[in-house]
Amino acid sequence: MCRWMAYSGEPILAEDLLFRPAHSLIVQSLHSHLGATTTNGDGFGVGWYGEGSEPAVYKSVEPAWNDRNLREITGQMRTPLLFAHVRASTGTPVQRSNCHPFRHGHWLWMHNGLLHGFQEIKRDLLMAVDPPLFPDIEGSTDSEALFFLALTFGLENDPFSGVARAVGFVEDVGRTYGIDHPVQMTVATSDGESFWIFRYSSEGRTRSLFYSSEISKLRALHPEVRVLRHLGEQTRFVVSEPLLRDLAGAWNEVPESSARLVRAGADEIRPFQPISPT
Amino acid sequence: MCRWMAYSGEPILAEDLLFRPAHSLIVQSLHSHLGATTTNGDGFGVGWYGEGSEPAVYKSVEPAWNDRNLREITGQMRTPLLFAHVRASTGTPVQRSNCHPFRHGHWLWMHNGLLHGFQEIKRDLLMAVDPPLFPDIEGSTDSEALFFLALTFGLENDPFSGVARAVGFVEDVGRTYGIDHPVQMTVATSDGESFWIFRYSSEGRTRSLFYSSEISKLRALHPEVRVLRHLGEQTRFVVSEPLLRDLAGAWNEVPESSARLVRAGADEIRPFQPISPT
Amino acid sequence: MCRWMAYSGEPILAEDLLFRPAHSLIVQSLHSHLGATTTNGDGFGVGWYGEGSEPAVYKSVEPAWNDRNLREITGQMRTPLLFAHVRASTGTPVQRSNCHPFRHGHWLWMHNGLLHGFQEIKRDLLMAVDPPLFPDIEGSTDSEALFFLALTFGLENDPFSGVARAVGFVEDVGRTYGIDHPVQMTVATSDGESFWIFRYSSEGRTRSLFYSSEISKLRALHPEVRVLRHLGEQTRFVVSEPLLRDLAGAWNEVPESSARLVRAGADEIRPFQPISPT
Amino acid sequence: MCRWMAYSGEPILAEDLLFRPAHSLIVQSLHSHLGATTTNGDGFGVGWYGEGSEPAVYKSVEPAWNDRNLREITGQMRTPLLFAHVRASTGTPVQRSNCHPFRHGHWLWMHNGLLHGFQEIKRDLLMAVDPPLFPDIEGSTDSEALFFLALTFGLENDPFSGVARAVGFVEDVGRTYGIDHPVQMTVATSDGESFWIFRYSSEGRTRSLFYSSEISKLRALHPEVRVLRHLGEQTRFVVSEPLLRDLAGAWNEVPESSARLVRAGADEIRPFQPISPT
Repeated sequence: MCRWMAYSGEPILAEDLLFRPAHSLIVQSLHSHLGATTTNGDGFGVGWYGEGSEPAVYKSVEPAWNDRNLREITGQMRTPLLFAHVRASTGTPVQRSNCHPFRHGHWLWMHNGLLHGFQEIKRDLLMAVDPPLFPDIEGSTDSEALFFLALTFGLENDPFSGVARAVGFVEDVGRTYGIDHPVQMTVATSDGESFWIFRYSSEGRTRSLFYSSEISKLRALHPEVRVLRHLGEQTRFVVSEPLLRDLAGAWNEVPESSARLVRAGADEIRPFQPISPT
Repeated sequence: MCRWMAYSGEPILAEDLLFRPAHSLIVQSLHSHLGATTTNGDGFGVGWYGEGSEPAVYKSVEPAWNDRNLREITGQMRTPLLFAHVRASTGTPVQRSNCHPFRHGHWLWMHNGLLHGFQEIKRDLLMAVDPPLFPDIEGSTDSEALFFLALTFGLENDPFSGVARAVGFVEDVGRTYGIDHPVQMTVATSDGESFWIFRYSSEGRTRSLFYSSEISKLRALHPEVRVLRHLGEQTRFVVSEPLLRDLAGAWNEVPESSARLVRAGADEIRPFQPISPT
Repeated sequence: MCRWMAYSGEPILAEDLLFRPAHSLIVQSLHSHLGATTTNGDGFGVGWYGEGSEPAVYKSVEPAWNDRNLREITGQMRTPLLFAHVRASTGTPVQRSNCHPFRHGHWLWMHNGLLHGFQEIKRDLLMAVDPPLFPDIEGSTDSEALFFLALTFGLENDPFSGVARAVGFVEDVGRTYGIDHPVQMTVATSDGESFWIFRYSSEGRTRSLFYSSEISKLRALHPEVRVLRHLGEQTRFVVSEPLLRDLAGAWNEVPESSARLVRAGADEIRPFQPISPT
Repeated sequence: MCRWMAYSGEPILAEDLLFRPAHSLIVQSLHSHLGATTTNGDGFGVGWYGEGSEPAVYKSVEPAWNDRNLREITGQMRTPLLFAHVRASTGTPVQRSNCHPFRHGHWLWMHNGLLHGFQEIKRDLLMAVDPPLFPDIEGSTDSEALFFLALTFGLENDPFSGVARAVGFVEDVGRTYGIDHPVQMTVATSDGESFWIFRYSSEGRTRSLFYSSEISKLRALHPEVRVLRHLGEQTRFVVSEPLLRDLAGAWNEVPESSARLVRAGADEIRPFQPISPT
């Protein structure tokens, strides 16, 4: 199972988010994500916004915990918006181009889940990708295919709708092949300003997804957690799996079949429903 | 520019083909292929037949000359038929799945050259690949796409015809996009028993390709070259580029627009002409 | 914690030992060793004897389960004696030269455990290595240092004694630095004909080590396990950790503080006691 | 032959130093350093100062030109002092811990050249390293050994003297082994504020080293080179080999047997003479 984390807020040193030791509620989650207890680490990736409008993406098939270069650069990486992902392959090769997050222009995308029967429906899905976008597909995963379908269906103008149409299309194709529950997903995508999260599966039983409580509330609940003092008021986290021994009151579950725009000020929450092409 | 070498003959230790020091006419060629003077080494691969009917393929993006594991295994690899390739990327990512040789079933394929305007015609080419074969495409190169088109057009039954149809198809598509000279190629492909080589380009100016003179003739010409004594009568080599300072009489040029079946006994040589789908 | 496996017996395809699916008692152990459930996979290595007198060693920092090249070559690797090891680093860098097995001449060495306080005593240990051997040390692990001490103390002539002296020396040095229990080890070493195993720790609480029951007995106990039919009478296995749900009667514990020569015919078993230099 | 480049001056985006296309005098040199025409690329490394007092170091055995992650991070790396190095191994393994620059505390070190007969004298050299420093040696190169000798002899207090004593010691040891010309080196080392360069060889025929003319002078000479407009007055470059087709007046040779402190304001130049321990 993949794990991912999204952060937005005050510019923060990536090393503090990804590696700083115990008593950091964020880092506890990330630590487990990045490998100390990971099984089947099939690559990882970090995408972040900083200089310029396009995010940088550091991805590798080396286990994150052993990646000395990752450690080095995160100590120098100050960013207001970061995505981190650890991959568990569902069959496609373990190579950098199959690691998340994927990038297109100034957009980032990461996914936990799978498109069932992908090998069978892959050709149909790729053929529906907008021809000018098609050559930009670098890897061979279902996750990247879903991203390019969302782009085809207008992600950049309206993420809620673009993703809904993409999922609707995949379900449509899947069902023609007799696949009952084609889509299993938690997704995060960003344009560098805000980020959108989605939790949905055709089966109605989606993998977990949590967003953080407000920092001021967290500081009040847990004065002993030092990293909270460094995080600003606009701090927002979304994680696929916090640790079980997590701090009470820190995490709130993202509801089944919902989508959320995470941004400074108030988030926007919507029910998520695929939009079928037919 | 990619470089490749194909060997068939008596079972021989791969290390003797790929690494043994000076005064080996074969090794001189291979040595330059594998990196001492390589520029733009964008990965390499070795495919060989041994146990079972399917060849094994060792591929890596590490420079071949530094690959300790390659050195180790070639000392243990005894084979009657081997392909070796060093890649110079024409744009697609440097990753294992984009290294040659490519494999499908018991067939191997390697290519030096390119399909011009590949990014533009890629979608059309991939859509022409036989749907059951489509999910087996692992990488993103023009070389692999050409292989899968050849398979689609019957490579496994008739390699001469399969490749001719594939090339004809690519030229056809290329020209609809205004690409004057779509195909540049030297190709080797094998089923484990024999191997076929092709030298062709739409422009009529193809990269070089050479086959070896008969071993008995070579031994007579060059008694000082020790490795020749280990090679049997059935030894056949094809190389993309022998060293300029090569032994006289050792290499013979494969003619422009020709194809050749290399096997025990007499080879079969044919002119190569693309077969257009129209 | 590292895991390792040693095999000797009839020449067997390494792929059958390392990758073949369920219902193989050996493979179950190995499967867990090679990564499906591995945590902290900090590299792996396979050493095997075949052509020539020196073993080949394939080592990598990529997780073994994702290593396509390993899969490929083990399908072509037929050997009568093989070592396989998965590393859990105790601090030194994760790099190929720090993976086991280590090789010197025709000897292989692998180790599970550690030398406590290694950073403090490292200089003393390395200075005791025979000067002609010193330049052959490639990495920075305690395991390799212990190997080179064993070589210094005559491993190649008398493994039981060489290892006992090496351990005695390390304990001696360790205690001058106030380290109570300097040595924790299970070790396997081979000259290509037989292999020696050691189970010892200064503390008297050593990590586990098991050797296999005779194949004929195993076949009688477990007729349903197909791979047993392919294994010859001389089959010998030693593993650091069989699966808990292991087949009854298959594994026998190597006693604490003991050493064993595993070979065709009868093994030789001895108590293991370090020989102090003083 | 290794190649290296040191930059100090206004904070600049590393991508502009290492990758920006033609008409950049700096980039031309760097482009050749980083691989387009590199032979024997045995790893590369970039060390730079930014957040905090310790530099970050990104090193890899992948050819620099193919390293997507390097490209990504240099677009986000803004620094006032950067070292870049491409390695040509003189025998020791190609692994990250053997790539330059080496780091100790807030010091960086890189080297082009070699210590002749290193395998023979290695033990003597390592034994002279200050015991508390000894465990920090991670790799197996002569370059790193020389660094640790310089640290032992007081590099951090007086780099001119520390390096002179280290070289004097190596020459002394080398000569006891009958090695005529033990040391061949161009070296750069930095504490994050300034950097020191050294050009010396026992033979008196050292590999090349060049420093840049003042930026204002360069701008006057070459108004067509755009990157010069982005570089501030304090820009200082030192390169091992500028391209032959370099801009006239841009590079000045560092004299044989000399050392130089490069810093804001006036540099300090001294003759370099080894200080023998005897």
